[in-house]
Amino acid sequence: MPDGVYKRIEIIGTSPNSWEDAVENAVEKASETLDDLRVCEVDKLDTRIEDDEVVAYRARVKLSFKYQG
Amino acid sequence: MPDGVYKRIEIIGTSPNSWEDAVENAVEKASETLDDLRVCEVDKLDTRIEDDEVVAYRARVKLSFKYQG
Amino acid sequence: MPDGVYKRIEIIGTSPNSWEDAVENAVEKASETLDDLRVCEVDKLDTRIEDDEVVAYRARVKLSFKYQG
Amino acid sequence: MPDGVYKRIEIIGTSPNSWEDAVENAVEKASETLDDLRVCEVDKLDTRIEDDEVVAYRARVKLSFKYQG
Amino acid sequence: MPDGVYKRIEIIGTSPNSWEDAVENAVEKASETLDDLRVCEVDKLDTRIEDDEVVAYRARVKLSFKYQG
Amino acid sequence: MPDGVYKRIEIIGTSPNSWEDAVENAVEKASETLDDLRVCEVDKLDTRIEDDEVVAYRARVKLSFKYQG
Amino acid sequence: MPDGVYKRIEIIGTSPNSWEDAVENAVEKASETLDDLRVCEVDKLDTRIEDDEVVAYRARVKLSFKYQG
Amino acid sequence: MPDGVYKRIEIIGTSPNSWEDAVENAVEKASETLDDLRVCEVDKLDTRIEDDEVVAYRARVKLSFKYQG
Amino acid sequence: MPDGVYKRIEIIGTSPNSWEDAVENAVEKASETLDDLRVCEVDKLDTRIEDDEVVAYRARVKLSFKYQG
Amino acid sequence: MPDGVYKRIEIIGTSPNSWEDAVENAVEKASETLDDLRVCEVDKLDTRIEDDEVVAYRARVKLSFKYQG
Amino acid sequence: MPDGVYKRIEIIGTSPNSWEDAVENAVEKASETLDDLRVCEVDKLDTRIEDDEVVAYRARVKLSFKYQG
Amino acid sequence: MPDGVYKRIEIIGTSPNSWEDAVENAVEKASETLDDLRVCEVDKLDTRIEDDEVVAYRARVKLSFKYQG
Repeated sequence: MPDGVYKRIEIIGTSPNSWEDAVENAVEKASETLDDLRVCEVDKLDTRIEDDEVVAYRARVKLSFKYQG
Repeated sequence: MPDGVYKRIEIIGTSPNSWEDAVENAVEKASETLDDLRVCEVDKLDTRIEDDEVVAYRARVKLSFKYQG
Repeated sequence: MPDGVYKRIEIIGTSPNSWEDAVENAVEKASETLDDLRVCEVDKLDTRIEDDEVVAYRARVKLSFKYQG
Repeated sequence: MPDGVYKRIEIIGTSPNSWEDAVENAVEKASETLDDLRVCEVDKLDTRIEDDEVVAYRARVKLSFKYQG
Repeated sequence: MPDGVYKRIEIIGTSPNSWEDAVENAVEKASETLDDLRVCEVDKLDTRIEDDEVVAYRARVKLSFKYQG
Repeated sequence: MPDGVYKRIEIIGTSPNSWEDAVENAVEKASETLDDLRVCEVDKLDTRIEDDEVVAYRARVKLSFKYQG
Repeated sequence: MPDGVYKRIEIIGTSPNSWEDAVENAVEKASETLDDLRVCEVDKLDTRIEDDEVVAYRARVKLSFKYQG
Repeated sequence: MPDGVYKRIEIIGTSPNSWEDAVENAVEKASETLDDLRVCEVDKLDTRIEDDEVVAYRARVKLSFKYQG
Repeated sequence: MPDGVYKRIEIIGTSPNSWEDAVENAVEKASETLDDLRVCEVDKLDTRIEDDEVVAYRARVKLSFKYQG
Repeated sequence: MPDGVYKRIEIIGTSPNSWEDAVENAVEKASETLDDLRVCEVDKLDTRIEDDEVVAYRARVKLSFKYQG
Repeated sequence: MPDGVYKRIEIIGTSPNSWEDAVENAVEKASETLDDLRVCEVDKLDTRIEDDEVVAYRARVKLSFKYQG
Repeated sequence: MPDGVYKRIEIIGTSPNSWEDAVENAVEKASETLDDLRVCEVDKLDTRIEDDEVVAYRARVKLSFKYQG
């Protein structure tokens, strides 16, 4: 992360397959509007359950990017 | 919280009456621009004091909503 | 912090000189678009290293300001 | 808490009115089957939101009671 | 909090009615001997239980005031 | 999670394949006796090692369900 | 801890002599109904005081055992 | 802890023999000036080492007592 | 820290120049009435902001000293 | 973990595929020089991002082994 | 701890008798190769159980010593 | 941090001048034997006091480097 001012936000990605996939969905969505993403830190992992089955993996992550104000 | 990507932000609501009221003010203000709010997690509670009297209850909360980018 | 609803965000300031300077850079950048900043809480301090030398001091801080939605 | 062995469990009470009420509901339900409850520690507070309105206050609490095995 | 040196202490207020009331009792008692109290941060909430009923709400809070030594 | 009183317990699932699989095993076992499971929060991840090889992935999770007493 | 699903509970043991003794009391009581106990993790230590004397050592511990549902 | 306002302070007891003894020294010293002590919570344990030998056990504890102002 | 019983308190020092200076102000003020200070642990750093400028650096520190009761 | 003295170190494994794979790489590398590894606790998970794509999964883990000095 | 650069490592001592003994074993082993040990901070306490009996007390501690590189 | 396996250690730097200087001393000493240092995370800051004066600033930091085994 070169010098300058950065902002850090909290995103929650989900996927029916895995936590890796959930993080990739979060990064993909964020990168539509944010540039120069470098590291994605996992803050919390959980799953959604329906009818006694795990139906979604959720990853709450922190993303840093150049601060535009 | 159905699948998709969500964003989580930190809001501080205040009220002269109670922490419940402070949270409701935060949710009310946030819902003016954010859709599909489902859960509001309390992160920290404090009060403002003036002339030895509690004059405001403040609740710092975390809100999740569908991520628009 | 008078009554009303506030938002709290996470900014990372950097400086080659000191952590105080890094925080000032963060506050200066944030104040270009945010009003009524009052307190800046330090969440984490680290440094960037190149060729065995500390080249940048980084301060991750939390800033509160009036919530516009 | 006199000598002996105690068990500590996690209960979540809810109420449309207040967190105090949510805790009372949790204690009332637990005391139907548990004896000698003395202290109820709040672990986490949150609210459920529907149509931009807070509809329930939830209190996650820890309760200790004599351990029956 | 203007410049100078401040001390921060931990007080536990209680009330049969609510946590807001418990905090007010703590602030009221503290302000008998401490000046210029401004913010009261909640550190922990619990309740005392007797005969399966919540009989007291307790709030453990942190108070800052000008340090007299 | 609709209103009412819920209990939250800690389960450790294991699997030779992945942490997702370990969580599914935990949910499957728990759902044999618990109803209406909705969210499974990951508290800690570790692995068991034998002869320098990872032989099991373990996920410690928290599960909430309607409190029967 | 071989594969399979385990449950983890919180027990508080007490003793007038020492924290080691308090933990042994907790393990002894738990093992009356739980099998295959392997590790007991200390979560919190405190003491009970009467007439300015320490009268009991209390150890809050976490115990894991095979989950029966 | 009956109703009223309590203060909570941090004391460090030491002993060449054990952590239990260190806590007893802390309680004994505190009770010279503080009344109605009931619970002493352990916050941190460490030891002092001299010439590769443990020479003192130190227990940092939290004590609550009736708040006199 | 030789044997005996010590007390640990929380002080907040401020300075317009730096966090080091803020800590020195706290130590200087505390040492007016407390003896044998040895270590000062930083608990939290923040800054006060006025008109978009950092005007004060604040350091919340923990100080231990011989307990006089 | 039989009796004796153990050392605990912090290793970061990486992999382009998954966190499980990252942990296996860490364990494999560590076991080249360390014996009798039994449990690997996950401390933190993150990912490296390049050109808006997750390119590496990183797992920071704690490993215990017999202490040789 | 005089000036200079120090390293801090994590050691786990065990003993069939007590946590004090477990810490002494850890310090004794470490001091075979490390000089000038001064403080040993307890990070975590647990016990090993066999056939429903506590058979070993384990103390995970942090030790600081002059850094040799 | 490119792919591969890294080790993370805890170092304490000291300086009579500032925490920045203390971190630089730690990095300088570590880089005598460790290659490719990139980020130095601050874990804890404190000061040493003699005769009521701050005589040393101490920074406990975490350093990552390529793992050689």
